[in-house]
Amino acid sequence: MIQLRVRLIDIAKKANVSVATVSMALNKDNPKVSKDKIAEIKKIAKDMNYIPNSMARGLVTQSTKTVGLIIPDIENAFFSSLVKRIEDLLRQEGYMTLITNSDEKFKNDMELIDLVAGRGIDGLMIAMSDESYGNVKEVMGKIKSINTPYLLFDRSYEKDDHAVFFDSHEGGYIATQHLIDLGHTRIGCITGAQQARYGYLRFLGYRDCLKDNHIEYDEKIVKEGDFKFQTGYELTDSLLDEGISALFVANDMMAYGVLKRLREKNIRIPEDFSIVGYDNLSLTKLLDIPLTSVAQDVDVLARVSVENMLDLIQGKEMNERVILKPSLNILNSTQKFNKT
Amino acid sequence: MIQLRVRLIDIAKKANVSVATVSMALNKDNPKVSKDKIAEIKKIAKDMNYIPNSMARGLVTQSTKTVGLIIPDIENAFFSSLVKRIEDLLRQEGYMTLITNSDEKFKNDMELIDLVAGRGIDGLMIAMSDESYGNVKEVMGKIKSINTPYLLFDRSYEKDDHAVFFDSHEGGYIATQHLIDLGHTRIGCITGAQQARYGYLRFLGYRDCLKDNHIEYDEKIVKEGDFKFQTGYELTDSLLDEGISALFVANDMMAYGVLKRLREKNIRIPEDFSIVGYDNLSLTKLLDIPLTSVAQDVDVLARVSVENMLDLIQGKEMNERVILKPSLNILNSTQKFNKT
Repeated sequence: MIQLRVRLIDIAKKANVSVATVSMALNKDNPKVSKDKIAEIKKIAKDMNYIPNSMARGLVTQSTKTVGLIIPDIENAFFSSLVKRIEDLLRQEGYMTLITNSDEKFKNDMELIDLVAGRGIDGLMIAMSDESYGNVKEVMGKIKSINTPYLLFDRSYEKDDHAVFFDSHEGGYIATQHLIDLGHTRIGCITGAQQARYGYLRFLGYRDCLKDNHIEYDEKIVKEGDFKFQTGYELTDSLLDEGISALFVANDMMAYGVLKRLREKNIRIPEDFSIVGYDNLSLTKLLDIPLTSVAQDVDVLARVSVENMLDLIQGKEMNERVILKPSLNILNSTQKFNKT
Repeated sequence: MIQLRVRLIDIAKKANVSVATVSMALNKDNPKVSKDKIAEIKKIAKDMNYIPNSMARGLVTQSTKTVGLIIPDIENAFFSSLVKRIEDLLRQEGYMTLITNSDEKFKNDMELIDLVAGRGIDGLMIAMSDESYGNVKEVMGKIKSINTPYLLFDRSYEKDDHAVFFDSHEGGYIATQHLIDLGHTRIGCITGAQQARYGYLRFLGYRDCLKDNHIEYDEKIVKEGDFKFQTGYELTDSLLDEGISALFVANDMMAYGVLKRLREKNIRIPEDFSIVGYDNLSLTKLLDIPLTSVAQDVDVLARVSVENMLDLIQGKEMNERVILKPSLNILNSTQKFNKT
């Protein structure tokens, strides 16, 4: 559609002035252009059905009406949902989205920032790869070097104000509190991969919740996972051997693995055992899997991120990061602790 | 990394010749440059650790080492897996990928082709939106207008040679033949959305297979679906009322919906009923759902598509489209027809 619109040059030709003059006349009443000329140019623009804002901005500020998006794993259902929503929202505002996938690699984050910046973007949205948490300085340096409004979303570097993310500590905390409220005291935990900061924060939420409830922390019932189904499946037996009655798992895919193993062992959910996952994957609903889970509302994250990105593009500053609160979606995988 | 490499201009300065001369000397033994000069330039390039192929190509042909990718639905697990694999393979060959999502809209396909082309790409890979099948001429015109090597993949326009896709007719055929081989004669079908050409082809495969096996086609046991879980769930009862013993469903998500409804009705799989889906989603394996399904190997599609895209970029022509064969992944949702 854009190429069919009236361009500044078309107006310039008709008004017999330069494009720069048209641009100045249309953007604001610039003293370098006489008032009569401004009025004349504005009239011509109006007669030609010129659409002032986006085009003028485009030509004057070299706006591309495009946002670059860097995400860590396009195959992860959480990110593919998130990307789709972000793209929808940006499209509604007249922006196109260039999506790239870092595959959780620091090196790729660095290259992709240059790539999308080089292609002309008005703003950059990045959910950093896990690896980049070990190289935050370099990544932030690279992001700032491209001189483009940026937003860190979902996975964020804590010390930067241009950020929108969910409170992972809170998520681990409410999951654990729910199990404690049901009377469980021996609650195991399968954490995320060690390098994943959000996974570590979920674990800290678990640990702090136990502490606040005067339940002793026992490292024997905490196992390091890696967010994968198979790992949840494999860690189940050793946790059961430690006599736990409930389990907090740092993501749903691992929790699905635990559920599979429990089914094989004829351990009934929730009669014999309670389990809470994290992510509230749409699969749970779609496939009728009863799994209480910490929910990070993708719609909210997409909306708040896009709103802030657009504000930044329009020159408004973000004075502090936005921390969204997760919630607990309670299904039939948790119930009151039954001592018998 | 790229900006740190030695550039043609660096060599040109050292050799005291123009960039064009360096480019000619390094690309091939161009008669316009003397043999001595060529040898000198090559030596300088070597001494400076100049990386000839990609850079020379980049500067001479304005290669961007980037491929633009347009897919219809990034949230669909099939496409997010496919995109990830394509990106991996392209990265191994030194190419970056710009991903865009058409949201199954014709209008978006048209805009995105311009968008990615405008950002500088060496090649365009597009899986057309369902809507675009009603506007193939316009989309193909737009694709050709950007003057860039292109490949239609997964969903393709049949009359174009630049295409790699799976044979959907064959998929419907082998699914139905499997059920017939098990002794079923009253086999229902839930088709895809009418506008989706590949869904229609799956249905034609079903119909032709019945015909080849001298089983009368009965439109009462064929229902139009839309690829969604809920639709499979809702269509189940009316199909069962028609006395079918087996069902071919045009995708797995709808088949999951059927399975849910069958479970609610205490109809046992495969003892009481046989069902075949389409897509062989990884969820099936991951979540232990027994569902025989037609498999379109994402790895093969990604590999063959990328190979052909790279050939096209390097100037090799594709003389005919590549049609890949689907296969049947047999799990425990189908068994011999039991008349009792």
